[in-house]
Amino acid sequence: MLEQIQKENDIKYIDKSEYGALAEEIRQFLIEKISVTGGHLGSNLGAVELTMALHIALDLPTDKIIWDVGHQSYTHKLLTGRRDGFESLRKYHGMSGFPKRKESRCDCFDTGHSSTSVSAGLGMVKARDLKGESNTIVSVIGDGSLTGGMAYEALNNASKLETNFIIVLNDNNMSISANVGGMSSYLNKIRTADSYLDLKSGIYNALRGRAKGDSLIEKIRRVKSGVKQLVIPGMLFEDMGITYLGPVNGHDVNALLKVIGEARRVKGAVMIHVMTEKGKGYAPAERHPARFHGAEPFEIETGLPKNPRNTPNYTDIFSTVMCKLGQRKENVVAITAAMPDGTGLKRFRNMYPDRFFDVGIAEEHAVTFAAGLAAGGMRPVVAIYSSFLQRAYDQILHDVCIQNLPVVFAIDRAGLVGSDGETHQGIFDLSYLSCIPRLQIMAPKNKWELSDMLKYAVELDMPSAIRYPRGEAYAGLKEFREPVVCGKSEWIYEEEEVALLAVGSMVQTAEAVRDILKEEGHACSLVNVRFVKPLDEDMVKKAAAGHRLLVTMEENVASGGFGERVQSFLNENALAVQPLSITIPDVYVEHGSVELLKKELLIDAESVAARIKERLSGN
Amino acid sequence: MLEQIQKENDIKYIDKSEYGALAEEIRQFLIEKISVTGGHLGSNLGAVELTMALHIALDLPTDKIIWDVGHQSYTHKLLTGRRDGFESLRKYHGMSGFPKRKESRCDCFDTGHSSTSVSAGLGMVKARDLKGESNTIVSVIGDGSLTGGMAYEALNNASKLETNFIIVLNDNNMSISANVGGMSSYLNKIRTADSYLDLKSGIYNALRGRAKGDSLIEKIRRVKSGVKQLVIPGMLFEDMGITYLGPVNGHDVNALLKVIGEARRVKGAVMIHVMTEKGKGYAPAERHPARFHGAEPFEIETGLPKNPRNTPNYTDIFSTVMCKLGQRKENVVAITAAMPDGTGLKRFRNMYPDRFFDVGIAEEHAVTFAAGLAAGGMRPVVAIYSSFLQRAYDQILHDVCIQNLPVVFAIDRAGLVGSDGETHQGIFDLSYLSCIPRLQIMAPKNKWELSDMLKYAVELDMPSAIRYPRGEAYAGLKEFREPVVCGKSEWIYEEEEVALLAVGSMVQTAEAVRDILKEEGHACSLVNVRFVKPLDEDMVKKAAAGHRLLVTMEENVASGGFGERVQSFLNENALAVQPLSITIPDVYVEHGSVELLKKELLIDAESVAARIKERLSGN
Repeated sequence: MLEQIQKENDIKYIDKSEYGALAEEIRQFLIEKISVTGGHLGSNLGAVELTMALHIALDLPTDKIIWDVGHQSYTHKLLTGRRDGFESLRKYHGMSGFPKRKESRCDCFDTGHSSTSVSAGLGMVKARDLKGESNTIVSVIGDGSLTGGMAYEALNNASKLETNFIIVLNDNNMSISANVGGMSSYLNKIRTADSYLDLKSGIYNALRGRAKGDSLIEKIRRVKSGVKQLVIPGMLFEDMGITYLGPVNGHDVNALLKVIGEARRVKGAVMIHVMTEKGKGYAPAERHPARFHGAEPFEIETGLPKNPRNTPNYTDIFSTVMCKLGQRKENVVAITAAMPDGTGLKRFRNMYPDRFFDVGIAEEHAVTFAAGLAAGGMRPVVAIYSSFLQRAYDQILHDVCIQNLPVVFAIDRAGLVGSDGETHQGIFDLSYLSCIPRLQIMAPKNKWELSDMLKYAVELDMPSAIRYPRGEAYAGLKEFREPVVCGKSEWIYEEEEVALLAVGSMVQTAEAVRDILKEEGHACSLVNVRFVKPLDEDMVKKAAAGHRLLVTMEENVASGGFGERVQSFLNENALAVQPLSITIPDVYVEHGSVELLKKELLIDAESVAARIKERLSGN
Repeated sequence: MLEQIQKENDIKYIDKSEYGALAEEIRQFLIEKISVTGGHLGSNLGAVELTMALHIALDLPTDKIIWDVGHQSYTHKLLTGRRDGFESLRKYHGMSGFPKRKESRCDCFDTGHSSTSVSAGLGMVKARDLKGESNTIVSVIGDGSLTGGMAYEALNNASKLETNFIIVLNDNNMSISANVGGMSSYLNKIRTADSYLDLKSGIYNALRGRAKGDSLIEKIRRVKSGVKQLVIPGMLFEDMGITYLGPVNGHDVNALLKVIGEARRVKGAVMIHVMTEKGKGYAPAERHPARFHGAEPFEIETGLPKNPRNTPNYTDIFSTVMCKLGQRKENVVAITAAMPDGTGLKRFRNMYPDRFFDVGIAEEHAVTFAAGLAAGGMRPVVAIYSSFLQRAYDQILHDVCIQNLPVVFAIDRAGLVGSDGETHQGIFDLSYLSCIPRLQIMAPKNKWELSDMLKYAVELDMPSAIRYPRGEAYAGLKEFREPVVCGKSEWIYEEEEVALLAVGSMVQTAEAVRDILKEEGHACSLVNVRFVKPLDEDMVKKAAAGHRLLVTMEENVASGGFGERVQSFLNENALAVQPLSITIPDVYVEHGSVELLKKELLIDAESVAARIKERLSGN
């Protein structure tokens, strides 16, 4: 049947009786393809029928669907003529794992980070109304994304609407890991409550027959203190001014079509509460939702990864060190924004449940909550991926650093992240953090140094950040393990002619660059920068004095990065050495393997060596 | 009576019967002092009794009060031994207008931006519990701050608490201007609903007397569709897992004491809903809440400013141009985050109400909402102060610029803002914006150029930002009005020896610097940079070629700013000219007059000229 669906709206020619079979076919397709390429599986399996129903009910691209986060848009891609794209899913120049306006006219808004869809949808609704048009606009948001404050800000504004705007709450009772917080409990109450209609008719009956009057009085009496007694589904949303429809079974296309029809008639913002199951239809994904959130290629029969990892990555190292620190220092606490698995804090949670906090997809709160903990005498370690930490920028600058509070930011996925692409590349953190006063910024060269830096950071009486990349933790340069001292870099090799000043992950690249240069007869020093801030001024002076060419290397854009800081220092001090700054260019970097991206961006060892040789010969 | 209150807890010796008189005395004190120094008046007059009650009930500094935003903390300062501080309120080295940990041990957490107090308070609660202590922790948050998503993120997390945490909702039915959104309507329903108890007993009576049964059935039937019929106060918060107490009259100290006592007995998060009146007790402030939010010195009798402004500031210019653009271009829409007055968009709102959006204190939503509007074909202008835009960093980077959407950021209060101090200085925006691909960044030299840049920006097919300072719009250099062209700066004076490359507000300073240098016989060029990004490379090359010294001038920190970018470009192109970078140093800048702060930071004309002369003589 899938072959009949060549483009948007083709699904409308499928007979109603075939919906179940089509859903099954889509699931098989997704499992097969993702088992080969890797990708987001669980969320997509959960959204098959919902996507089908939206495509049957709506007229794309006139009508608009905004997918929150966007990793659940695979069925949408499949139904809009992108079947072949799955061969190259998340590969360089291949199909993105997220909605992209440049990929299809049916993708109306790019997403990647959480909780943006209601804001974007509301903007489109207002634009539609101003243009006097009447197309349908649907924002699909997960219950996980609803823990993000931005979604609440948007709902708060949507309440004023007097024209149609459909918000589909895709409730699978999960973020990437288990969901948290009051809103989640509230949704759970709706899930588990007797249906509203049953309850309502029960009340009427009771009122009509006087005999039961007293027990009913008792029931109503408890309304205020025990909400569970009378959950009117969606009252919380209705209280905010959003019409609520549901809950609806998210795996029943006909039920979904019916409620979408109802929703389109509402003159205002309307929320359809859809209950779905993450990983639906594939047993391993149903059992291990976190593992199949973003999956590596796997064996379909067992669900086990095709290429199991043998070497620890930086997240593993962080995980281990945090457990040790937890034991050594009673005031160390750990915070994650809905990613106990992704950040590696799950083990810390298991060992020190009282000192572990999963705050939901709420990076802003996470950081100011950490500031409060620090003001109360704790040593919080906040583990957030580089691109998501952008969400908490003001909180770092305004709540942590002004007060000089000892919060440690453990910034995972700093640098290129690969297949998630533009929205997830961690290539801005050195820039947006370096301009913040007081914050110490570190990057480890290898796995031992991440450990040493964390131990250093939790002893500091001020804020600090440690950035480390996705992927395997470098296990080279083991013999270089000088103690971590504030603002001091580490000389790995001291020679002359060329000095490579490398930040974090680039130390490994710099070793390879040095090997190439040495082979061709160039002497070459290598400095492990360690501290991007404060700058090791003595190191820069020494490097400038003893070398012909000074090369800074960082996995970050140029503006505001380490290279600019060094150049500025050289100028201020009138140090006459030629600097060369290796950075990521001023562009958004698409998806693809990290190795390939580095080559394309000219920050791999061969490219860097070539640029250095060119500079040397030009001098 | 105030004289008896020399330090924290002294208020406890005041007799209950004197509370009203004390409140009156405090109000008189605040009105007198603020009429001289200027400062936040309305919010402080509204919080007098609430602050008194908290100080009577709590034991400071053991117990903690976190003031959201913090500008309502004047009575708190008065009751904790800082009476004399009001002489120097918001003056350089004087008392801050916000809570500061370095100012008093009774200030437990610094605030300034909105919606942080529940997060910070929750952090302190967790720290308290981990330490096995049992002090009381109170976060005081306004209904305006409750429109910020971060507050919701925090409430969502507070719901899990099993120990006491008091959240005081100080509800004056206002942000700085009128409040917006579903939450505000909800709170209004509580304000206006029959009291819960009345309603409840009504229901019981009805049930007991069968005669009224049917009409009651009808009433309950309407519950779902017409929430107004049965507002159980605070049910929305109870639904989220927060115990709700109130509403309580916020100007009745004894009622407040009673409810605070009740709240302290709750094992969990408890919200006290306190109804207050902004500007209470001072008629002009009651009538003009926005004007008395942050007031300049005023005549007590009339409430009129002592030094009325005769010349327009940049906000006025923005206001006027927006109205013209609104007329000229139908797709221009305007967005503010709760500041129609502060940003100058009030006039646009009055002329084009359908194209104006006040989203509440919700900068994140504001920006992604704008992205949605732009994706729908509109040309949104988002007007947000520089320091508040930090809140929407990810939304600019992730939702606007990746998709290259034509959103215009009108960044008011960029540069030093003066008396609000550290939390409000707009000295980071060039840094945090310059690293974002695709974004054009401009700064006007004078009032006409702000107008020209805005007209240019709304025609662009990509994102742009215009930053302009607080205060009087510069009306000099009127004769220099070349058309605004992408990435092109403007040569004001072309000479030799020294080239001043000045950004925005610094052009005026640079003129004065040039006058000083000319007097002493130095030739001096002046370039109005216009575009911080993209960099005008031809201009830099020309400046480098024709001058001995190249001076960049910007009202921004060094890291990631214009100066670093220019130095980096000079190095990349091996342009051998000595650069001098004038920036704000790597510190948080406290409150004080802008003029004084510039001197202290060595970015005023005399200091800059001195630094240039030093450099020239050293060469």
